[in-house]
Amino acid sequence: MRIVITGGAGFIGNKLVRALLQRGTLTDRSGTIRPIDQLVLFDVVAVEGLTHDPRLEVRTGDITDRRQLEELIGPGTDGVFHLAAVVSANAEEDFDLGMAVNLDGTRHLLEACRALAKPPRFVFASSCAVYGGEMPALLSDQTILTPQTSYGAQKAAGELLVSDYTRKGFIDGRALRLPTILVRPGRPNRAASTFASSILREPLAGQDAVCPVGRDVEMYVLSPRRVIEALQHAYELPEATLGPVRALTLPGITVSVGEMLAALERVAGEAVAARVHFEGDPTIQHIVAGWPTHFQAERALALGFQPDNDIDEIIRAHIEDELAGHVH
Amino acid sequence: MRIVITGGAGFIGNKLVRALLQRGTLTDRSGTIRPIDQLVLFDVVAVEGLTHDPRLEVRTGDITDRRQLEELIGPGTDGVFHLAAVVSANAEEDFDLGMAVNLDGTRHLLEACRALAKPPRFVFASSCAVYGGEMPALLSDQTILTPQTSYGAQKAAGELLVSDYTRKGFIDGRALRLPTILVRPGRPNRAASTFASSILREPLAGQDAVCPVGRDVEMYVLSPRRVIEALQHAYELPEATLGPVRALTLPGITVSVGEMLAALERVAGEAVAARVHFEGDPTIQHIVAGWPTHFQAERALALGFQPDNDIDEIIRAHIEDELAGHVH
Repeated sequence: MRIVITGGAGFIGNKLVRALLQRGTLTDRSGTIRPIDQLVLFDVVAVEGLTHDPRLEVRTGDITDRRQLEELIGPGTDGVFHLAAVVSANAEEDFDLGMAVNLDGTRHLLEACRALAKPPRFVFASSCAVYGGEMPALLSDQTILTPQTSYGAQKAAGELLVSDYTRKGFIDGRALRLPTILVRPGRPNRAASTFASSILREPLAGQDAVCPVGRDVEMYVLSPRRVIEALQHAYELPEATLGPVRALTLPGITVSVGEMLAALERVAGEAVAARVHFEGDPTIQHIVAGWPTHFQAERALALGFQPDNDIDEIIRAHIEDELAGHVH
Repeated sequence: MRIVITGGAGFIGNKLVRALLQRGTLTDRSGTIRPIDQLVLFDVVAVEGLTHDPRLEVRTGDITDRRQLEELIGPGTDGVFHLAAVVSANAEEDFDLGMAVNLDGTRHLLEACRALAKPPRFVFASSCAVYGGEMPALLSDQTILTPQTSYGAQKAAGELLVSDYTRKGFIDGRALRLPTILVRPGRPNRAASTFASSILREPLAGQDAVCPVGRDVEMYVLSPRRVIEALQHAYELPEATLGPVRALTLPGITVSVGEMLAALERVAGEAVAARVHFEGDPTIQHIVAGWPTHFQAERALALGFQPDNDIDEIIRAHIEDELAGHVH
């Protein structure tokens, strides 16, 4: 079985690679469990920190280059995890780059898949950023996509393509709308949501953190563990369980900043929680207030996708996975 | 004022040209009524049957050629009506052509508009084909777009682009989802909906017609007169009346085949209505049964778009406009 992951250098791609190498198999379209013989990672930057494994092949390239993708998705490719994207703030700042990577890149990849003799499974990482503006208080899989960022618009267009390429029989697609991932490992990035990870990750690593929004601000979140599980689960779902619309929102949990900090104190103690200081940033407060926070995620739940149980569990998982069990 | 119409050779484009030349003005973005100095029609085939007018310029070209669009949308362009499209059945049969014209063509046109010093008004003809599959009985502007044709998917993606290019300040866009147009002048085309016009148009012209679906089949329809009015109305709506989501469904009326034929008899007599014969076609019946038929169209109604009053009015308008008032 030959599996390709785009965006393999990102933290989700990286974790997915480890998970796939560890399990060693995936259920294919016929329902047969088959060994993963070849796992190809593709990213614009070199993938670092991966264990040496004979099944693993790392490629650096440009997703906006159609010919590179035709080579990447070579004969015998069984499945693709398409995670590569220019993130929200970047796509907003550099419109052309966002369109080239997020829309054209996805299209080129779909075209390369279409050229295969057997339509591959295709798991596409979409985002709850497809929602925005005026929305109902509780969103469902029936809610219209009204993105208020170019990133969200490009992901929404990608979902349409994934469903249509599937309907045409070119791929067997599944698009997952990811909630805000909490706790992201690594450093703060330029996303407006970065503070949510920072106010948990930095104190747990012995550093101070600044919270730019009030305690009552809510977010819809999912842990890295559950995202990695969800990507694999999506890959293995039998086609018969999916309708013609191949996009669905993953089930997250809704937590307020106040609840995050209360959980941090419960899990890691008062001294750690005291490392967070509030310094209001009206711009970030405004952006975050515009995000949807309550979802039914009825389709994903019916299909067996799992949310985290609570914010305490999310924090504990971060300590286990990223801090080797030790709070600083 | 320089106005460009793509798809000018189609019957809607053709009627829109006549309407714009006759009124001679459009309200611009500042709210000022300005004369139309130049009206440029662009289509892949030559536009026929237009009156000679010094304001009118006809261009034949290829909407998939970026450079041609850059020349078309030259400096001083104030507004664009983007009607050009590969229609439903054609886009389904020739996937690449549909993608090239309906998605890439729209994108190239938007890019050409973005290059202008002043963002132009941009009216995009979308379609109720953005809906399909499992839908609520009554659709609203909050219903998720779930196209079940490539044409519908391409139009839905076009809507996303129009809203995002507007949000970025590249254009001032408005996308209208057109119901089935009834009565289309001319000949039957390859659309599954073509019978709806045929069973009214052909009998009124003295010819027999075959109806491939049962009397209880309902359709959501709008007359050519109201579409032409809607396109102009959409162009002139002040930006302040529109939110960030620039797509809306036009208000049509829902009529059954039985109601169409009863109206035909009322308006044109029993002998004319008797020219329609029923010959069931399960394929067409199946396709048409999958179309949405009941819409709230709440946004469009609030913005002053007008549906037809009833099917009798639609038939009478066809007799006036296309048959010089005479039934054959």
